[in-house]
Amino acid sequence: MPLFTSHIFVCCNQRPPGSPRGCCDPEGSEALRDLFKAEVKKRGLGPLVRANAAGCLDQCERGPTVVVYPQGIWYGGVTSEDVPRIVEETVVNGRIIEELRIPDEQVNCRPKP
Amino acid sequence: MPLFTSHIFVCCNQRPPGSPRGCCDPEGSEALRDLFKAEVKKRGLGPLVRANAAGCLDQCERGPTVVVYPQGIWYGGVTSEDVPRIVEETVVNGRIIEELRIPDEQVNCRPKP
Repeated sequence: MPLFTSHIFVCCNQRPPGSPRGCCDPEGSEALRDLFKAEVKKRGLGPLVRANAAGCLDQCERGPTVVVYPQGIWYGGVTSEDVPRIVEETVVNGRIIEELRIPDEQVNCRPKP
Repeated sequence: MPLFTSHIFVCCNQRPPGSPRGCCDPEGSEALRDLFKAEVKKRGLGPLVRANAAGCLDQCERGPTVVVYPQGIWYGGVTSEDVPRIVEETVVNGRIIEELRIPDEQVNCRPKP
């Protein structure tokens, strides 16, 4: 059995209400992670695809944030409506959804407040 | 600024005491994650290296578990003493520490109870 073809990490970090950096999961519900898990299961993509909760991915200003490894594709502003197409387009078909993508050069570059 | 050269995910999942699958972080202290963060900081490897908490990586029997992406290197039975050498050997020098490695073919294959 090979390694995961896509390992989806969903930021489930909570920051205090009103944090200037924003927050990926203000309610701490891990709802987005649950939706990814359900979509992966519905399509029978396990055990080669896995959706995982992650602590702070440090993209708070651009959240909710998801990163897909080993491809290293970062998505920001992800909503529940985006989950099926991320799985369909990116995980199954290997295509990047440009309008969700956090540009590579921004991933390690925190915006000035 | 390029993407992370190494993004270290440390399983911080808690299972109930006595769980037959074992548990990566029985005390829920995220101590191993903190040690990786401190080591990365001490060596000045940020912002290109990041240590992150992760939810259950599903390697409970082989935990504490760490996966380094985008390389997709899985380590099991990781102790606090292993942290400096994982950072030195794997993150800085790109070498796999064989005695810690979870073989690829085991990552998606849960052992029979």
